[in-house]
Amino acid sequence: MIHINFERLKNNIETLSKIGAEENHAISRMAFSQADMEAREWLKKQILEANLELYIDGAANIFGKTNANSQKPSILIGSHLDTVPLGGHLDGSLGVLVGLECLQRIREENIQTEYPLEMVSFTDEEGRFGGLFGSQSLCGEITPDFLYRAADLNGLSLLDAMKNCGLNAFDSLHARRNPQTIHSYLELHIEQGPVLDSLGIPSGIVEGISGLFKWNLKIHGFPNHAGTTPMPMRKDAFMGLAEFANEIPRILEEDGSENSVATIGRVNLIPGSANTVPGIAEFTIDVRDPNMEVLKSLEHAIRKSLSAIVRRRDLKYEFDIISEVIPANCAPEIIQCIADTSDDLGIKVHRMVSGAIHDAQIMSKITKVGMIFVPSIGGKSHSAAEWTAWEDIEIGANLALNSLLKMAKILH
Amino acid sequence: MIHINFERLKNNIETLSKIGAEENHAISRMAFSQADMEAREWLKKQILEANLELYIDGAANIFGKTNANSQKPSILIGSHLDTVPLGGHLDGSLGVLVGLECLQRIREENIQTEYPLEMVSFTDEEGRFGGLFGSQSLCGEITPDFLYRAADLNGLSLLDAMKNCGLNAFDSLHARRNPQTIHSYLELHIEQGPVLDSLGIPSGIVEGISGLFKWNLKIHGFPNHAGTTPMPMRKDAFMGLAEFANEIPRILEEDGSENSVATIGRVNLIPGSANTVPGIAEFTIDVRDPNMEVLKSLEHAIRKSLSAIVRRRDLKYEFDIISEVIPANCAPEIIQCIADTSDDLGIKVHRMVSGAIHDAQIMSKITKVGMIFVPSIGGKSHSAAEWTAWEDIEIGANLALNSLLKMAKILH
Repeated sequence: MIHINFERLKNNIETLSKIGAEENHAISRMAFSQADMEAREWLKKQILEANLELYIDGAANIFGKTNANSQKPSILIGSHLDTVPLGGHLDGSLGVLVGLECLQRIREENIQTEYPLEMVSFTDEEGRFGGLFGSQSLCGEITPDFLYRAADLNGLSLLDAMKNCGLNAFDSLHARRNPQTIHSYLELHIEQGPVLDSLGIPSGIVEGISGLFKWNLKIHGFPNHAGTTPMPMRKDAFMGLAEFANEIPRILEEDGSENSVATIGRVNLIPGSANTVPGIAEFTIDVRDPNMEVLKSLEHAIRKSLSAIVRRRDLKYEFDIISEVIPANCAPEIIQCIADTSDDLGIKVHRMVSGAIHDAQIMSKITKVGMIFVPSIGGKSHSAAEWTAWEDIEIGANLALNSLLKMAKILH
Repeated sequence: MIHINFERLKNNIETLSKIGAEENHAISRMAFSQADMEAREWLKKQILEANLELYIDGAANIFGKTNANSQKPSILIGSHLDTVPLGGHLDGSLGVLVGLECLQRIREENIQTEYPLEMVSFTDEEGRFGGLFGSQSLCGEITPDFLYRAADLNGLSLLDAMKNCGLNAFDSLHARRNPQTIHSYLELHIEQGPVLDSLGIPSGIVEGISGLFKWNLKIHGFPNHAGTTPMPMRKDAFMGLAEFANEIPRILEEDGSENSVATIGRVNLIPGSANTVPGIAEFTIDVRDPNMEVLKSLEHAIRKSLSAIVRRRDLKYEFDIISEVIPANCAPEIIQCIADTSDDLGIKVHRMVSGAIHDAQIMSKITKVGMIFVPSIGGKSHSAAEWTAWEDIEIGANLALNSLLKMAKILH
């Protein structure tokens, strides 16, 4: 058992949190922004100062490697430096800095591992340009078509954004890495949910990462005067939506698992005037579960429910898929390795699923992955209110360090 | 029994519909717009050519009077010339032109009535400047405070809009008319709802005009990540709204009348992103009934329902009153007079309530009012699709003409 240098880690977290800082502790460090480029330069300097081999791939993913001459596949540990607009200081950054700290400590202790170790900072995990660009590039999922179409919400293309940073987006097509060069991937991340905080448990072992389907739906009725149209003569699109929304708890109970969640996050009524019966109700639904079969059942149940409601109310509905993500399982041997390490360290852990998407989900397509969660106070993330107690950061980082060592020595 | 000159009425409707005409038969003739001023000039010319005494009050209401020297109170018949943006050709205009036609025919037939008759075109019934400015001025409801604050949705003040037309808004304070100079008010209007059209009945006798309360509501919950927040740990403001919306049919059945309607016409979720549990659900509710006691019961039931829902779900709610309008009853003797006239003419009629607001509702505060409805095909209004069959217009106008004559001779 070795321990991280907590003061150094804390100092790094605080230093990094100043790059892209806005008012009230919020951080805006979106991919390929000036702040992101500044953070990358700072990270490269840290990697070089830690005597790790610095390497940057075509997707601008940043690596720092130990034992660079080994022919064995690497164990990667990391996360991402980019944030959402007005995001927090830990989402992504903590995983990168813990990865850096682990490799520094292992070098300092002169520990030889069977597998070389690489810390990694993935590009644009937050999806400014519509994907998890860095990890997807590494996994060979980025296509020329994506590169030509990818743009942020303001219409800035990925091509131009990278060009502005002196980078060529097409280099990302060469960032694909032979899966045989990777042994496994470990990621420490804030939970971004309230579970660990409410349980009072400092660390979570992620067993699976939820997949999801996210749809844009439209219920079509007919717009009528809110004063002159008797209730039985209405085709009220919103009342159809309200009835459907009220069915969601039943659908989750009947067709979901205890990990299923469903959210209607956006609603727009057309024409949207107080004295007109809504003719169209546009809305989004976001449904998640770590099991693909469960997701399929939920999709089926939602379509059945919507169909029945619109048929009875003489409405119509249509939907567009915004995104679909296949669930990922963490590797049982890594889960066991983290659990054993927590026993060794006397750390209380909670086994759980991740409802948020992470680079680990992408990486699971080409390698074995594991994830460690630390608590998010009040479940808050993607905001300046994001916070994790320093002692929980220290506990999580020590769990990551010793799990990594166990993986690097034991896993085959 | 005399009859209107249908060709002249039809010709006037078609001529007036060209003023403010937009593409696809839509009409934009908002109060104090150039088109409105043009329509006013045209109407004044028609009044003078019909040998009626033209009079314009301080609120720019236009009157054409018969028997100008009579000391008796007048029977008024009319409606309004202004439209909503991209409105139809009948809403308001039909009532003004039928009023004109009735007085023309009565003059042509040299009929002497016990009470003088006045046709009237009220200013800004559609509420561009936030009220029913013309009829409210006549009833003495306009205050200096209103004049200083009234503005359209683009921020143009009523003061400036009238000034641009060479008018002084403060003259409207002098438009109040002594109620003793008015015997009663009759208004013919399109139904703006689907009832007559679906029943296949050409004329409606309005028994009452719905009052309403219209609220802006906010349900406050807590915004959380849609992936990482388990269902039992959510405070989803939209799910609270959906549950409440689903209670509306029960509330109307338990606490409303067969004339009650309730509409949620606008919904806005904050933050309004597909992957965030809504923290705030803003929405409007518009509730109408022709009976004040029923409206009070509905208000009470709605507040009880909302309170119970937010308490159980650990949410909060607040509301602002957008508007409250007291219901109006049509005068039983005018209802009877129209009913008798329809019997005389062999016109099938349906007794009904008006769910829309009209100048008659304002006028009911100072005088006896009556309203005749003609069918709106498909219930459509406030759009270019507004339409009434010409034969129904003719039937309605003849019913108005002969009811007016009966009122002018019989009523005391």
